[in-house]
Amino acid sequence: MITGKNYIGNSLSAKGNITYKTFNPKTNTNNENVYTEATSQEIQEAVNLASEAFKEFRTISGAKKAAFLNAIADEILALDDALVNVYMSETGLPEGRAKGERGRTVGQLRTFAKLVEEGSWVEARIDPAQPDRTPMPRVDLRKMLVPIGPIVVFGASNFPLAYSTAGGDTASALASGCPVIVKSHPMHAGTGELVALAIQKAAEKTGMPNGVFSNLNSSGIEVGQELVQHPKVKGVGFTGSIRGGRALFDLAGKRPEPIPVFAEMGSINPVILFPKALETKAESWAKTYASSITLGTGQFCTNPGLILGIKSNDLDTFISTLSDEIVTIAPQCMLHPNIHAAYTNNKAQAQDQNNVTTVAAITETVTENYAQQAVAVVDGKTFLENETLHEEVFGPFSLIVKCADAAELEAIVASLEGQLTGTIISEENEVSQYDAIVQALSDRVGRVIFNGVPTGVEVAPSMLHGGPYPASTDSRFTAVGRDAIKRWVRPFSYQDWPNELLPNELKNENPLQILRLVNDQETKEAL
Amino acid sequence: MITGKNYIGNSLSAKGNITYKTFNPKTNTNNENVYTEATSQEIQEAVNLASEAFKEFRTISGAKKAAFLNAIADEILALDDALVNVYMSETGLPEGRAKGERGRTVGQLRTFAKLVEEGSWVEARIDPAQPDRTPMPRVDLRKMLVPIGPIVVFGASNFPLAYSTAGGDTASALASGCPVIVKSHPMHAGTGELVALAIQKAAEKTGMPNGVFSNLNSSGIEVGQELVQHPKVKGVGFTGSIRGGRALFDLAGKRPEPIPVFAEMGSINPVILFPKALETKAESWAKTYASSITLGTGQFCTNPGLILGIKSNDLDTFISTLSDEIVTIAPQCMLHPNIHAAYTNNKAQAQDQNNVTTVAAITETVTENYAQQAVAVVDGKTFLENETLHEEVFGPFSLIVKCADAAELEAIVASLEGQLTGTIISEENEVSQYDAIVQALSDRVGRVIFNGVPTGVEVAPSMLHGGPYPASTDSRFTAVGRDAIKRWVRPFSYQDWPNELLPNELKNENPLQILRLVNDQETKEAL
Repeated sequence: MITGKNYIGNSLSAKGNITYKTFNPKTNTNNENVYTEATSQEIQEAVNLASEAFKEFRTISGAKKAAFLNAIADEILALDDALVNVYMSETGLPEGRAKGERGRTVGQLRTFAKLVEEGSWVEARIDPAQPDRTPMPRVDLRKMLVPIGPIVVFGASNFPLAYSTAGGDTASALASGCPVIVKSHPMHAGTGELVALAIQKAAEKTGMPNGVFSNLNSSGIEVGQELVQHPKVKGVGFTGSIRGGRALFDLAGKRPEPIPVFAEMGSINPVILFPKALETKAESWAKTYASSITLGTGQFCTNPGLILGIKSNDLDTFISTLSDEIVTIAPQCMLHPNIHAAYTNNKAQAQDQNNVTTVAAITETVTENYAQQAVAVVDGKTFLENETLHEEVFGPFSLIVKCADAAELEAIVASLEGQLTGTIISEENEVSQYDAIVQALSDRVGRVIFNGVPTGVEVAPSMLHGGPYPASTDSRFTAVGRDAIKRWVRPFSYQDWPNELLPNELKNENPLQILRLVNDQETKEAL
Repeated sequence: MITGKNYIGNSLSAKGNITYKTFNPKTNTNNENVYTEATSQEIQEAVNLASEAFKEFRTISGAKKAAFLNAIADEILALDDALVNVYMSETGLPEGRAKGERGRTVGQLRTFAKLVEEGSWVEARIDPAQPDRTPMPRVDLRKMLVPIGPIVVFGASNFPLAYSTAGGDTASALASGCPVIVKSHPMHAGTGELVALAIQKAAEKTGMPNGVFSNLNSSGIEVGQELVQHPKVKGVGFTGSIRGGRALFDLAGKRPEPIPVFAEMGSINPVILFPKALETKAESWAKTYASSITLGTGQFCTNPGLILGIKSNDLDTFISTLSDEIVTIAPQCMLHPNIHAAYTNNKAQAQDQNNVTTVAAITETVTENYAQQAVAVVDGKTFLENETLHEEVFGPFSLIVKCADAAELEAIVASLEGQLTGTIISEENEVSQYDAIVQALSDRVGRVIFNGVPTGVEVAPSMLHGGPYPASTDSRFTAVGRDAIKRWVRPFSYQDWPNELLPNELKNENPLQILRLVNDQETKEAL
């Protein structure tokens, strides 16, 4: 089933000389299949095909796009154990996680199918002509969202399904009417190819234009760079490191025609513990956080990497309980030796900073590629002055900062870079004492959580997955939930356009029965 | 009334040594008042004050922001003739235009006041908790749009009121809850100061925090550059040249924390004449376009600078009528000698290209700073090959391209850079023959017009003023109409947040009675 070739629309292609294999971190060996990196010529072919496909795909009805998205979901499920097994062999993640992530992926596809089938998402606005208005008659104006063109999606290392080949970026871009070219993630090229096959089958079954989807193999950064610089590419979705995301953002910004890059680049997800909450619940919160820090081997972008509190006996209780608890959790496998090595280095770098005390750590030898979780503590003043401690350690590590007082806590929160999430652990009646801290936190994050954990990103209309830079390159959009579709569209106005030539969304009769803003009033009525 | 000083919140300040005057192009002399350019220290003060003001302003109710915006409109009207006279002295534009633009400016302010007073614009989405959901309970998630922080607005040379100090950028940013720092346009510093005074008075009368608005004088590019690079500035609005807009875009992209720049950079606004429409109406369209090309001395970003047709006797009739007609229109004054000089040079450059024939031109001497309108003709092949002919000539000049056939016309349309508008002049029943041309045009523009002129930008919810690069730096937003507010906001999610601590927009009771998406259904009901 796995060919190792590139999917250029409906064709398989492997013209290049650079080949690579994926790696099984659990067995610590290469997987068997060989993948051939896309050549410049293949990149050209995929983009040109996408650009041609766009001419048709942009005008396809919401109902047909929904059929396509639902067919992708069906085809992914039809891959069944073949997909789950390849997923596990390329990630070291357990079967439950593979199936859970598959469910999330399929759910996202169906959510976007529902959204575009219903159709109101295009934000139709109609202001009919007023020929008798004085001093000037008003023209007829109608506006809706339209797709921007071929989109490049970079697969994420830590979510081979939900944030990769048919993940949220691809699903939302296809839903909007944009063709997608996936730059496959080299760590899970096999999972990527199987999903690409599912998309290709779905595209053929539902009569989509050839080129609506391509999947290009790549072992380094060149394929991605070429794609982002191609004049016919109109937008980019990326999930990964700050370094990688910023490089693509800069590249896209230097183009003769700059294009939007939506890079979701991770975060240390600060958690603030207020004193009264610790008085009664220090131990239970410590246990909850031991789980959250180690969930998925700490390989979530919403992993709580920074815990902030005001020094007190209760905070010490929290620290000691968390320390006791976290070392009882069995070490787990990381995604890849490179990710494991980065974790080990970055963790050690944090632990080695002045005034940092490691309070909990698995130190005994563990299986190759398994992570040794750890927790360290530092004082507020040191944290404020040492920017190394603000950097993400991707994996099951968290730094606890003991602040001298609320003022220092506020200064620290205000000094943080942009974050995906911020969490407040608090008694309800004590929040009002810390208004400035909550406000400073809100200013730095995309989502605030009350008495919970940041891990777990619900797919819902009200989810904001993103945040001020460098959590993401554009804080005005979400990577998760239905509003993710807004990244791939632009508003477009028709002035005095004949009714029969308008798209259905804007016709007088409202044939799609969508909600529209007519004369500044929301309505489903015909004109 | 005019002090020539900088407005830093409620204070006047003039610490610098660089001074300048504005110029009256009609009398060809300097105006009397002297303006002092803002120093780096004054820039710091304005930005720091804006950043402090943001802490309060971001939480101010829609009703209070509406009162502020309406008060600005009232104060602008109260300036009465003082404003109109300064406006005319700094632009060479007639009284009718001054009053018309003032009406537009006041109308925009009141439109945004109405929008934020009503409140539904925040796109509230609520997904209540489902504690019994399996396999995992669902958390309570609520999302709304929140302001991003201090915004810098660059005044435009060609709209001293509607796109400057209290223009669409400022009105939409203030409406969103973002403080504004205006980089005053040096050509109409007096008009800018009077409007700044109106905003300052309105802010004081309606109890806005000091620093919600500042107005900084500047004669060159340094003040703007410093502002765009200031870490506390979070967004930029600009209307002007491609060179200026791109420079700011690049500067903002290179910041450690990149920020959005919404630069609206003009356009040549292609107009396509289909054959049948010319059979019967060549002469009347020619007369209409003679007016549109010269309207406001051609100093509109939607001025029709490029007219495309397929060669025919009817096209020749259009050309000869347009030529006869346009020279009968009295030459008008341009905004400034520099703009006049640029017009003269750019027009001559276009006219001097190989195979370009000037078919109409005012050649007799006109009053100093008055523009000599002209029309030139070129064949399609030459136009396709010569990019100089694709460049905007800001002023009353238009280039007509005689295409060999429909295929050449399509190739030309597809080769154009991004445009604000594209116009189709056509019989209704002939459009379908030229589907590919209409589609290619739609791909390159923000607004399409059927049987009309591109000049005239209606302020309405359905207006899209913007377009693919370089019409604007971000085609996904409009500079005109209520959706312009979306440039200054980001979505923000609350997870499991206590009801009494939520903003009113997201509370169970829906105290503001706004339209919200609850469990994926639009409703004004309480939870």
